Amino acid sequence: MARADSGLPEQIADKIIQLILDEHLEQGDRLPKEAVLVERLGAGRSTVREAMKLLQSRNIVRIKQGSGTYVASNPGVADDPLGFTFIDDKQRLARDLLEVRFMIEPQIARMAAEHATNDQVVYIKELCDESERLAEAGEDYSAADTAFHNAIAESSGNLVVPRLMGVLKASVPLFIDVTGKKLVEETIRTHRDVADAIASRNPTAAHDAMYLHLVYNRNMIAESTQEQSE
Amino acid sequence: MARADSGLPEQIADKIIQLILDEHLEQGDRLPKEAVLVERLGAGRSTVREAMKLLQSRNIVRIKQGSGTYVASNPGVADDPLGFTFIDDKQRLARDLLEVRFMIEPQIARMAAEHATNDQVVYIKELCDESERLAEAGEDYSAADTAFHNAIAESSGNLVVPRLMGVLKASVPLFIDVTGKKLVEETIRTHRDVADAIASRNPTAAHDAMYLHLVYNRNMIAESTQEQSE
Repeated sequence: MARADSGLPEQIADKIIQLILDEHLEQGDRLPKEAVLVERLGAGRSTVREAMKLLQSRNIVRIKQGSGTYVASNPGVADDPLGFTFIDDKQRLARDLLEVRFMIEPQIARMAAEHATNDQVVYIKELCDESERLAEAGEDYSAADTAFHNAIAESSGNLVVPRLMGVLKASVPLFIDVTGKKLVEETIRTHRDVADAIASRNPTAAHDAMYLHLVYNRNMIAESTQEQSE
Repeated sequence: MARADSGLPEQIADKIIQLILDEHLEQGDRLPKEAVLVERLGAGRSTVREAMKLLQSRNIVRIKQGSGTYVASNPGVADDPLGFTFIDDKQRLARDLLEVRFMIEPQIARMAAEHATNDQVVYIKELCDESERLAEAGEDYSAADTAFHNAIAESSGNLVVPRLMGVLKASVPLFIDVTGKKLVEETIRTHRDVADAIASRNPTAAHDAMYLHLVYNRNMIAESTQEQSE
């Protein structure tokens, strides 16, 4: 027989979420030991364990073997929160994701030029250097590229924007995959323009540089699609 | 002892995701019976059950007691995919969500005016009527309001946009809560303008009407914040 939709482990999971909120536990903080939770939540040890596994699958906690259970980084933000895994047409997904990035990333760059702290500006420039170094060495720079875009989102001063960029981050490796190495040189140059505009606190230049960065992406996707259909 | 990060149920869950993809199961489709999965995946009955519970907590499947297990609607899109539950300052969250809606919703309305099918136009007008009727009767119209914005997103012709609106949907009840009933009249009028512009296939008018709709939201939030601090 199938189990009920909301069983005991789900209820205990909800109580653990409430405990994280009530005690203002932040990402990386350690949760109380299992024995303490069993006592406080009035649940059996195996129910608490099952609840923790549910919370881990939702990226709310991280269970470290032999060490304990911790609040996950960006708690509650799932790995693939929009279910892109379940979209079959990856070429169309790449195009539609880029269309969404056109809506938001130029404005995010503008906000970053207005709100970034000096430390954030330094960090953005470091990531720009890092992805340039990797790209010139012919190495995989997708992680540095993603970190660069995320750092700009973090600097926007808006709480929702970095979480949203986390959602769209799947798109960067996708572009590199779709478009091959032709994109590398333009990526380096337009990243540099974006970083410089933010560093010089010029919102309009930051907006425009990010817009151009996306235009190069779009042109490359269009070329790559044409090549595949020829 | 804590369990390993990726145990057997997680591995079987990944295999079930692959099965959903390979067999092109769509939302609402029924998964093979437990006994069949036990056979095909070479796993024990209790492991398959535990895997299904993990998949349910990620909104990939829906377990219906006594009936079977089905692919969830919008599979993989979690209830609160950006973890807004874990943001303490709800007033700031409302402001920042609105800032993000300013970035994307006017452009989504423009796209809907270009790409909506005739059936979609009819549905958008119906939802507009429905929320007007409820609002005038003094009833809760937040579900109809959310459905109206989602229907416009569905009509954009972009795969990512409706999923993104799902992410931001938390904001509509939040606004109504923050701003009270003053918003009702403006919501009705500006909804009507958006629906009419889409129906008359006027992308610029749709963009502008949605922009105005958001401006009213922003003014009301600003007033409500002032009142609270007075």
